[in-house]
Amino acid sequence: MINIGIYGYGNLGKGVEAAIEKNADTNLVAVFTRRDPKTVTIRNKSAVVDHVDNIPSYKGKIDVMILCGGSATDLPWQTPEVAKNFNVIDSFDTHANALKHFNDVDAVCKAQGNVGIVSVGWDPGMFSLNRLYAECVLPDGSDYTFWGKGVSQGHSDAIRRIEGVQDARQYTCPVDKALEAVRSGSNPTLTTRDKHTRLCYVVAKPGADLKKIEQEIKTMPNYFSDYDTTVNFITEEELQRDHAGLPHGGFVIRTGQTGFNNENKHVIEYSLKLDSNPEFTGSVLVAYARAAKRLQAEGVKGCKTVFDIAPSYLSPLSNDELLKHVL
Amino acid sequence: MINIGIYGYGNLGKGVEAAIEKNADTNLVAVFTRRDPKTVTIRNKSAVVDHVDNIPSYKGKIDVMILCGGSATDLPWQTPEVAKNFNVIDSFDTHANALKHFNDVDAVCKAQGNVGIVSVGWDPGMFSLNRLYAECVLPDGSDYTFWGKGVSQGHSDAIRRIEGVQDARQYTCPVDKALEAVRSGSNPTLTTRDKHTRLCYVVAKPGADLKKIEQEIKTMPNYFSDYDTTVNFITEEELQRDHAGLPHGGFVIRTGQTGFNNENKHVIEYSLKLDSNPEFTGSVLVAYARAAKRLQAEGVKGCKTVFDIAPSYLSPLSNDELLKHVL
Repeated sequence: MINIGIYGYGNLGKGVEAAIEKNADTNLVAVFTRRDPKTVTIRNKSAVVDHVDNIPSYKGKIDVMILCGGSATDLPWQTPEVAKNFNVIDSFDTHANALKHFNDVDAVCKAQGNVGIVSVGWDPGMFSLNRLYAECVLPDGSDYTFWGKGVSQGHSDAIRRIEGVQDARQYTCPVDKALEAVRSGSNPTLTTRDKHTRLCYVVAKPGADLKKIEQEIKTMPNYFSDYDTTVNFITEEELQRDHAGLPHGGFVIRTGQTGFNNENKHVIEYSLKLDSNPEFTGSVLVAYARAAKRLQAEGVKGCKTVFDIAPSYLSPLSNDELLKHVL
Repeated sequence: MINIGIYGYGNLGKGVEAAIEKNADTNLVAVFTRRDPKTVTIRNKSAVVDHVDNIPSYKGKIDVMILCGGSATDLPWQTPEVAKNFNVIDSFDTHANALKHFNDVDAVCKAQGNVGIVSVGWDPGMFSLNRLYAECVLPDGSDYTFWGKGVSQGHSDAIRRIEGVQDARQYTCPVDKALEAVRSGSNPTLTTRDKHTRLCYVVAKPGADLKKIEQEIKTMPNYFSDYDTTVNFITEEELQRDHAGLPHGGFVIRTGQTGFNNENKHVIEYSLKLDSNPEFTGSVLVAYARAAKRLQAEGVKGCKTVFDIAPSYLSPLSNDELLKHVL
């Protein structure tokens, strides 16, 4: 049995909690929160809710802590801090800082004899794996990642900060024409605008200037100005009814050639279509918790990414079972 | 530099030779054949052709031997035999005997301090990896593998053995309706006939009874009787012009649910579209040769499958480069 602790009970923490229900060899021991634990109600019947300050007292009772905070301000200090006493898994997803974060966690894990696995999820995570495998088996080629159709929390938040906006939901959408061009093997050069569009559903406050809101969204640097953006104004009821979920997904496609004269083309495509981004991410985190416990039992210490973990470590099946039923 | 030997110079051996050209850190030392080496001409400019009987004399000059024989009668004895002196990679693809083959190679590798990686390619191989990853991250779900559209050598050979047949090419084709049903998440129960059709191009000998040939194909047990089969008679010229290649591919799809009430559905799909089955398979074998050499350098010995190899071992890039550019 793999005893798991969850640090942070937002959407992702709830996704991890749900994933633990689906894995018979995992057990949720405790959910840790920065809020007053009395105000937090979890779904799991046997686990406790405790304050993050009490985490160290769970040493020996929890095999793997899954950190469910944000990459911007939480995980950079939380993961190394918790790694002092526990094996840790996180979904750190700021690509530009991934190496620094890895090194920070690695130093603590090596000093304390723990295993950390960082940047786990679907991107980074399953998409990274597919980029790597595809690049290794087709070294002469190009790869393309498309995201969506899915809700971007960061872009939705950016719209909510505009004056006159009450609520908003932003979908990132891959452009079909670009996807088809990539799949054809024509190796197209694609700009940011070519690859994705942005689709916004906005609830305006009473009396707000809709033209001005739309203009502010479409010209917002970094977030929207490089994209073809569509803004739809809807009611709060419509937003709650039609846009309450957090779907996401995307595509990793690599095309390449083999042969002494490059005469043969190949297309490798991996795609995800997810009803719930946080529940799927949570499911990936729990699979890697299994790997973390096993690696520590083998005497491994230090930080890892999905690239460093042999796939069999994610499975509850034995080698014989894997060769008989999955190979 | 990874020094590689190729055992067997059929379609797959040629595919491995082509793949070595695409990997700057690999070097082809020799191609071994059961034929008179003087009768075998290879594309590579620096490697030699030698008889399989001379393989042991290359000990120390070759890091990894890639076995390119058939799974029915070659690999079961060749891989263990060669593993006495070399790290070995093969594409053993008889699923039912995979565990026995693994154990045979494992015993020799452990005794001799070598690394073997067996059943490498795309199925088994990349498809197996995708079945495993998908099953681990979506434990409550079902997976489906479809093959094609692609040439099945075994089925083409079976047609050629029919009286009155001069030549033939058989394509395995996935059924679009079945693919769509799987992607929808409806978790359909699919028979053999539901999933694939078989498309045959046959060159008949002069004066042959076409009706009889067609009937014999369609009713052939194991190969065709469980499928909807289409037989087209064409000329030898048409066969050579339109069906000379060895394309293949397929789909691994897993659908599953998460959430306390199974309220969220997810679809994971991996697909390959390959112009040349042997060249793609050869490319996968060469990537795993990199892993075999590294594992031996770390003191690992014994047999492995793709499940046991951390993805980073396939890449020529360092951990820092992987985290910066691929993660």
